[in-house]
Amino acid sequence: MEGTGNKTTIILFSGDLDKAIAAFIIANGAAAYDHEVTIFFTFWGLNTLRKDEAVRTNKGLLEKVFGWMMPRGAQRLGLSKMNMAGMGPRMIKHVMKKHKALSLPQLIELAQEQGVRLVACTMTMDLLGLKQEELLDSMEYGGVAAYLGDAADGRVNLFI
Amino acid sequence: MEGTGNKTTIILFSGDLDKAIAAFIIANGAAAYDHEVTIFFTFWGLNTLRKDEAVRTNKGLLEKVFGWMMPRGAQRLGLSKMNMAGMGPRMIKHVMKKHKALSLPQLIELAQEQGVRLVACTMTMDLLGLKQEELLDSMEYGGVAAYLGDAADGRVNLFI
Amino acid sequence: MEGTGNKTTIILFSGDLDKAIAAFIIANGAAAYDHEVTIFFTFWGLNTLRKDEAVRTNKGLLEKVFGWMMPRGAQRLGLSKMNMAGMGPRMIKHVMKKHKALSLPQLIELAQEQGVRLVACTMTMDLLGLKQEELLDSMEYGGVAAYLGDAADGRVNLFI
Repeated sequence: MEGTGNKTTIILFSGDLDKAIAAFIIANGAAAYDHEVTIFFTFWGLNTLRKDEAVRTNKGLLEKVFGWMMPRGAQRLGLSKMNMAGMGPRMIKHVMKKHKALSLPQLIELAQEQGVRLVACTMTMDLLGLKQEELLDSMEYGGVAAYLGDAADGRVNLFI
Repeated sequence: MEGTGNKTTIILFSGDLDKAIAAFIIANGAAAYDHEVTIFFTFWGLNTLRKDEAVRTNKGLLEKVFGWMMPRGAQRLGLSKMNMAGMGPRMIKHVMKKHKALSLPQLIELAQEQGVRLVACTMTMDLLGLKQEELLDSMEYGGVAAYLGDAADGRVNLFI
Repeated sequence: MEGTGNKTTIILFSGDLDKAIAAFIIANGAAAYDHEVTIFFTFWGLNTLRKDEAVRTNKGLLEKVFGWMMPRGAQRLGLSKMNMAGMGPRMIKHVMKKHKALSLPQLIELAQEQGVRLVACTMTMDLLGLKQEELLDSMEYGGVAAYLGDAADGRVNLFI
């Protein structure tokens, strides 16, 4: 993880499948080139990290509504374009499989294996009513201060 | 404003409430850590800065149409996801209030107090027919040259 | 192209007319200030570079479907906001012409004249079934490694 001394940070704001795939491809590429990589998940991007089973939590009504309406995990995200009520994502997943490209869940696993830090934004978790037990294990938690600390040293800082 | 010598620039292209909130949270965070921060507002992002009252201006028809169709100010922006004809923004504003998070107009005010420079892109203002008197006071005005001058020295440069 | 030693990279992920215009205005501006500029086209951004005539290719059905559904070239892109079944893009093109702003095809041409490198992401080309003969001539082709090589030296790195 040292090597070049390069740091890469990505804020994943979007909850779209295509943008999440782009974020993880860049992150995994950068990690392969020995960058220290951190992805900060905020707003809809947090949905990428939700476990796909329902998790029992103690929530208010509005938080429950958000929880129902937002996609539960990387398998259920829609596309930013040509979503067509879910047909688009299925087409993309199909061609990715055909071309033996890694699926989003596999890209996330690879990122974790390569030591990419996955940081969930605690402020948006509060707003959307997402609890730590609903998100993938081995996440880190932080806010804008954590982001800025990393990004100020970063060579490549993207907002996706 | 000196301190670390760090510079942060954000291009706010989007006119979505959630993205504008994200931009101002990052900007305010960076200003709190003594970065020199500039937000460049272009295209739909300019709507964030519109005054909420109607302003009399001398415009052609097409410019008037743009003016009517685009949201007038930070209070009226929609969400990038789950907008649901305005219910989404109301839900978000409700939970932000409940969690005592600053609203977008408060975030803008805080940014101004912290010396974050707010620069409106004159080229898109021309295209969309927006006049200076329609935007918040204490704005600066500039183009891509002003942006590049800042960004070339920036540590964190984001496009939102 | 040497001058300041500044490098600017832009990932154009979006296939929206307004975002493509923003990307090329920044790219052309940076090139005018002697930055070395590269735009990486990935996912829907690749549509910006399609030739506007149909090109005969040897494709599978799903790739043909993608090809039909995606806009063919810079003239046919929609807007990220207020697209209104194509009326929005026509309005924008109209005001750009009125203000004598360069159109997207002209901005692309200018970028090529100024030596901006246009790199198509080969991985997404495979996924979406786009062939080199469908894209503008004088493109370069590369993957995430090429991007990271440039971006790690870049002063301004944006994801649009």
